[in-house]
Amino acid sequence: MNEIESSSPQSRGPADHNVRDQIVAAADEHFSRYGYDKTTVSDLAKAIGFSKAYIYKFFDSKQAIGEAICAQCLSKIIAAADEAVAGATTPTEKIRQLFKALVATSVSLVFNDRKLHDIAARGAGEKWPSVRAYAEHIRQFLTEIVREGREFGEFERKTPLDETVHVIYLVMHPYVNPLLLQYNLDHAEEAPAQLSSLVLRSLAP
Amino acid sequence: MNEIESSSPQSRGPADHNVRDQIVAAADEHFSRYGYDKTTVSDLAKAIGFSKAYIYKFFDSKQAIGEAICAQCLSKIIAAADEAVAGATTPTEKIRQLFKALVATSVSLVFNDRKLHDIAARGAGEKWPSVRAYAEHIRQFLTEIVREGREFGEFERKTPLDETVHVIYLVMHPYVNPLLLQYNLDHAEEAPAQLSSLVLRSLAP
Repeated sequence: MNEIESSSPQSRGPADHNVRDQIVAAADEHFSRYGYDKTTVSDLAKAIGFSKAYIYKFFDSKQAIGEAICAQCLSKIIAAADEAVAGATTPTEKIRQLFKALVATSVSLVFNDRKLHDIAARGAGEKWPSVRAYAEHIRQFLTEIVREGREFGEFERKTPLDETVHVIYLVMHPYVNPLLLQYNLDHAEEAPAQLSSLVLRSLAP
Repeated sequence: MNEIESSSPQSRGPADHNVRDQIVAAADEHFSRYGYDKTTVSDLAKAIGFSKAYIYKFFDSKQAIGEAICAQCLSKIIAAADEAVAGATTPTEKIRQLFKALVATSVSLVFNDRKLHDIAARGAGEKWPSVRAYAEHIRQFLTEIVREGREFGEFERKTPLDETVHVIYLVMHPYVNPLLLQYNLDHAEEAPAQLSSLVLRSLAP
């Protein structure tokens, strides 16, 4: 479950994926160096070596390119989380590894050495489709893990499943939502482990 | 424990509290209508009817006035929380009422009908002394409640007290820190109750 479609209605043009991918890759490189907010499609065209008109054949706005980058980035975070969960043997360990992988991968892909904060923050602030899909993926992870933990007798079963999943998501939200994560970077190292422990104590049967 | 000193090193001038209070009250009124970021000390002087020079006798910058307003506002939030906790009979109920009162009072004092977001966000972002004191107050509330809950046998005692207090604070942080609260207003109504339930399940002996 690690593909996030940008499902952006603004993507258009020939199904020439190769050129689209080239534009996205070059824009990603450019934005992560100079920032998204400060770059115009003209700047981008110059940097990539395509004409502005040619870029507009594939994307109808800077935001459409931003959404494609955002979707790609979130897919990588989900893939890392998927791998971390797959490598854990118990539901308890899966909760810990999921939270840890989501935060560590977000920090490294969005905040370390790369100026992608502004795309991420804008995507989260404006609730781009990829960001909504990402939140939905995390809820699915949690639903599966909590259900498994209940079946194994590792987690309590009194609280309704959707209530449990929702509140765990609320606890994770400030660290998995990039708009909020930028203000929580001070805690990003230890908070996932500490909050996982609290969540796991709350799940005790 | 409901007094938050602005403890701002920039406050100065004669100990003429009456004039200081007048300036703070008028500035509060002005900022909450026009916003803090957009107002200069000149605008303020004009609106209050004092000269700029006279205002500078009492505060050495707009930020010093902002800090005084911020401290006053946080004192009111702490007072509301104090009252809510005092009215609760059990430690369990105190956790619920504390969280609820902090968020409800913050929303009504900072976000409803008043443009004080920018002072609050700036204070939180720049870690003004009053904001740090506010966080410390909340930790004190939590320490007292958790200690009492342990004495009464209502809460578990295995986890070190400071660890428990710290992680509950982490859960509350996105809702009690105004910089983060502005992004969590969608959840501000139900999240405190839902997160309190999770915290209380984690505290079960």
